[in-house]
Amino acid sequence: MEDYHKPDQQTVQALRNIANRLRINSIKATTAAGTGHPTSCCSVAEIMSVLFFHTMKYRPEDPRNFHSDRFLMSKAQSAPALYSMWVETGFLKESELLNMCQVDSSLEGHLIPRQQFVDVTTGYLGQGLGVACGIAYTGKYFDKASYRVYCLLGDGEMSEGSVWEAMSFASYYQLDNLVAIMDINRLSQSDSAPLQHHAEKYQRRCEAFGWHAIIVDGHSVEELCKALSQPRHQPTAILAKTVKGKGIPEDKMGWHSKSLSKDMAEMVMKDLQSRIMSTSKHLYPPTPVEDAPPVSLRNIRMASAPAYKPGEKISTRKAYGMAITKLGRYNERVVALDGDTNNLTYSEIFKNEHPNRFVECYVAQQNMVSVAMGCAARERNVVFASTLASFFTRAYDQLRMAAVLDSSINLCGSHCGLSTGEEGPSLMGLEDMAMFRALPRTTIFYPSDGVSTEKAVELAASTRGVCYIRTSRQDSAVIYNSNEDFHVGQAKVVYQNKEDQVTVVAAGVTLHEALAAAEHLKKERIHVRVIDPFTIKPLDVKTITDHTRATRGRILTVEDHYYEGGLGEAVCSAVVNETGFNLHRLAVSHVPHSGKPQELLKIYGIDRDAIAQAVRKMLSTSTNRISHQDERPT
Amino acid sequence: MEDYHKPDQQTVQALRNIANRLRINSIKATTAAGTGHPTSCCSVAEIMSVLFFHTMKYRPEDPRNFHSDRFLMSKAQSAPALYSMWVETGFLKESELLNMCQVDSSLEGHLIPRQQFVDVTTGYLGQGLGVACGIAYTGKYFDKASYRVYCLLGDGEMSEGSVWEAMSFASYYQLDNLVAIMDINRLSQSDSAPLQHHAEKYQRRCEAFGWHAIIVDGHSVEELCKALSQPRHQPTAILAKTVKGKGIPEDKMGWHSKSLSKDMAEMVMKDLQSRIMSTSKHLYPPTPVEDAPPVSLRNIRMASAPAYKPGEKISTRKAYGMAITKLGRYNERVVALDGDTNNLTYSEIFKNEHPNRFVECYVAQQNMVSVAMGCAARERNVVFASTLASFFTRAYDQLRMAAVLDSSINLCGSHCGLSTGEEGPSLMGLEDMAMFRALPRTTIFYPSDGVSTEKAVELAASTRGVCYIRTSRQDSAVIYNSNEDFHVGQAKVVYQNKEDQVTVVAAGVTLHEALAAAEHLKKERIHVRVIDPFTIKPLDVKTITDHTRATRGRILTVEDHYYEGGLGEAVCSAVVNETGFNLHRLAVSHVPHSGKPQELLKIYGIDRDAIAQAVRKMLSTSTNRISHQDERPT
Repeated sequence: MEDYHKPDQQTVQALRNIANRLRINSIKATTAAGTGHPTSCCSVAEIMSVLFFHTMKYRPEDPRNFHSDRFLMSKAQSAPALYSMWVETGFLKESELLNMCQVDSSLEGHLIPRQQFVDVTTGYLGQGLGVACGIAYTGKYFDKASYRVYCLLGDGEMSEGSVWEAMSFASYYQLDNLVAIMDINRLSQSDSAPLQHHAEKYQRRCEAFGWHAIIVDGHSVEELCKALSQPRHQPTAILAKTVKGKGIPEDKMGWHSKSLSKDMAEMVMKDLQSRIMSTSKHLYPPTPVEDAPPVSLRNIRMASAPAYKPGEKISTRKAYGMAITKLGRYNERVVALDGDTNNLTYSEIFKNEHPNRFVECYVAQQNMVSVAMGCAARERNVVFASTLASFFTRAYDQLRMAAVLDSSINLCGSHCGLSTGEEGPSLMGLEDMAMFRALPRTTIFYPSDGVSTEKAVELAASTRGVCYIRTSRQDSAVIYNSNEDFHVGQAKVVYQNKEDQVTVVAAGVTLHEALAAAEHLKKERIHVRVIDPFTIKPLDVKTITDHTRATRGRILTVEDHYYEGGLGEAVCSAVVNETGFNLHRLAVSHVPHSGKPQELLKIYGIDRDAIAQAVRKMLSTSTNRISHQDERPT
Repeated sequence: MEDYHKPDQQTVQALRNIANRLRINSIKATTAAGTGHPTSCCSVAEIMSVLFFHTMKYRPEDPRNFHSDRFLMSKAQSAPALYSMWVETGFLKESELLNMCQVDSSLEGHLIPRQQFVDVTTGYLGQGLGVACGIAYTGKYFDKASYRVYCLLGDGEMSEGSVWEAMSFASYYQLDNLVAIMDINRLSQSDSAPLQHHAEKYQRRCEAFGWHAIIVDGHSVEELCKALSQPRHQPTAILAKTVKGKGIPEDKMGWHSKSLSKDMAEMVMKDLQSRIMSTSKHLYPPTPVEDAPPVSLRNIRMASAPAYKPGEKISTRKAYGMAITKLGRYNERVVALDGDTNNLTYSEIFKNEHPNRFVECYVAQQNMVSVAMGCAARERNVVFASTLASFFTRAYDQLRMAAVLDSSINLCGSHCGLSTGEEGPSLMGLEDMAMFRALPRTTIFYPSDGVSTEKAVELAASTRGVCYIRTSRQDSAVIYNSNEDFHVGQAKVVYQNKEDQVTVVAAGVTLHEALAAAEHLKKERIHVRVIDPFTIKPLDVKTITDHTRATRGRILTVEDHYYEGGLGEAVCSAVVNETGFNLHRLAVSHVPHSGKPQELLKIYGIDRDAIAQAVRKMLSTSTNRISHQDERPT
């Protein structure tokens, strides 16, 4: 067996000692905090000890070293076990443990990448393995390096479908550098996990999903050392049968998420201390092989200006595909992911030109977003992941955790809004802006032509945090010159005249409708100003309010999105305290029907005619304020 | 074999004829629409024919008869195949097919329950099987009836984790009345499905997940008849190897979501017509056993007023558990679901009192929402499903489809906001209001004490569409008398004085902070009015604006939620065009840290001190308008 030497008795005892010290430290930390999951820490004590002091190759003084093996704690409630392990390596001070969960501590209840040894925030619900897949894919196919990826899961989270999406992905791409350790301690939050202690049932499921699966006693350091040293030609699952609360209240329901009282903690810690036998052996983690290439993600730029000419027709979804392909031409670490929609989102252009940097994630959007986070971890890649805008709702929990993590991933949702047409409402992204706006630290690009789409892609590549690019299905005319300069949070005034009476703010398909309405109204000698916000978050409040003032406070927003949470509400929030403003909004108020895109824009009142009509109405009632906010049926 | 008589040759030919007529009608419909997936219809032609004219027991003239077997089309892109089948039964007119996908047609691109034969809208992405589980669970455990549930899936969607959540659920609860038919046609939207035509790999996965799995030739009516007639002691998967586009461009990539040209359609239909052999046999679907109990969901009411006394302390999450239990006491069709959090959401109270009507869904939130939709289908049950507010992000796509469907399900998210405390941001629901507000036809209850929580539960039970109840972790004082009357869309003024200078709108934990601030400010002779909106959607715009006018346009919103999409933005939208209003907002602007709840409310500026300070500031600057909308850091 590769590298496998049966550990001597001194080593075995040293590993057991580390496990018991982990138990003691986890109890100390959770009892001091008065919260946390000490029982979930105790079940993984030997697993952690063997991983960190026998199996994994890493540099304890430099947790983000890119040559090192990676460790992901998917069962986030065992965070104190990880903290205790980094105390054991010397990276954390033991005293820091006693401050865990306090507002001034960098050690939080669940894992947050404030600490260098945390690559990703995995929440609670089976998100770790997908991220581990992204890291392992990067290691095997992009870095072509020796480092391995270890992911520790709980048995409760094995009920999450996202885990099985990741299992499929890992076997499909033969990620033999990936090891999942499942802590089968039987007990979950409110009940036993459905498969109880039947490790053989988990084994059958893992094997059916193409993994090598080994059942071990999770409290036997010998069995763990052996299983973790087996050679691998496919991803490996170590199914560790454990006892929840091993060493403390063992295998009892109702102890999940409960810390021990001080007295009980004292008693338990004394007992654990008595099991620590002195040994001459001091263990150090093995050193990593230094064969991963250095990577710099600075200066990810386009080598030339966009090649589009004003008036030329192209859909923003196609312009997205063209743009990531162009960006990838000059930057080897630009990678693209898609979920079986590459011929709809046009990421197929990237796939065709850069096949080795395209990752097909199939119909599994949760896992696609997790893989994207994994690829972006430790700043190894600039990641663009695309699917239909509506399908990102499937991954909202993953997106939420990406925002908590401040992961720099770029997402593109195509087929936004009504302009999706005949396929009907299930494929129309009409809540995507609301969804992304409500996540902190996200940037939302909503480009309206080929040039601005290319600029959005370029800016997203170098913008920190989650970036979302909203694209449309249908062709539209190029508006901007190729030398137009774009910035995050900077709107463009695309149509103006000094006699303008109303400011119209619109993006994507509705920007083109607004321009058509402006042309039409001009014939009636009504002049409107048209603003393209370019980014919905952050919103260029100054440009919008300045120009609205210039049109006597009259402002109209038009969006291919539901009323709540999108462009209109963003503008409402921005101008609510402006004196003398009169805001009118057009958006989609009902679940739409199937139909031809242009028909739908008309029926749901966001087309050129609706815009022209709204402008006329604002002007006719402008001596009095309009008393209701919008035309929305109640 | 139960019921199984090998079909005679006349029957076999008649079933084949139906399959080919289905192909012809699907091509007619999609060619007329110029859109759709004829190839996905052709692969399922024999499956549909056997199901509808040999296997399923139902009444063609009464598609929603509650004794009938249920059919769910999870692969929604095969909608025209279902329409064609109901033409075959005589329920639909053939001429209606030619109008498919037009804005005036009730036949949409994907399935929408505008048609009586569609129980649920399943979108595109593996949502059908979870809904089928809910229907089958209802059939077996609540109705104790003979009807069976058949669900047709595509192989593309088998990559979705939600399918495997449903597979686990079905075997755990031994749903032997459930049959899943998988159309393994190998080709997906942009690529082959990852397991290609390897039906044996699907079989291993299904078996590992506890299903009986049979591989058949999906174009052989004999094999289908036999497989569908096998006796069942566990859920059954029929793995049907098919050819995409069978009968038309066969097994070719690039034909997904493409309709045929008129010329090509003519040619193909002529060929299909030639395969239809005349037969004397006319097939009728077998009649269902009429053993399901009649159910009425009218008058789901509490039998008595809430028993809480003002000042008594109870968390709204616990009041939720108490309320559903009480409602269940008088209404046999009230059922509760949870996802391994019943001791956190307090649905455990229901579980303890009504164990036979409690469904544990384990850590699989997507499936929990789908099962809820299934239980609510055909108005069989009043369903309440609970988990942490943040965990509903996991099921946003299912919630979106529930809104499209107008499914009457009631959801409760506990542990909303910062008041969740030490466990940290991954468990704090801070975007849940944004998420639910952006879905059409939803009602959002945000009760602030025990009485209003009980009223919210009672109202939700009889409110159509998706209802969301937002509850908090911590205890708070009962505000309302037990005889207080509550209505959807009706706010309550909970603190007032004729000298009031500012109107504060707050809910949940921030309502209690606002009341404390009001008491404190009173000592400074500053008077504020406090409004509890009760429902965030619909919002009681009239009460809020009337009272704000009475406080000279000064209004302050305070919410335990991010700034975007919640209470504050709802109020912004409502009052943006009011003259002389001055709106100030307090909400959470950053990803929060772990900490004690009260500390966090203070740090993120939504506690009593922050409210008092904001009120003072509004009054000190009230001669001039405040120039920025809120205190939010940029």
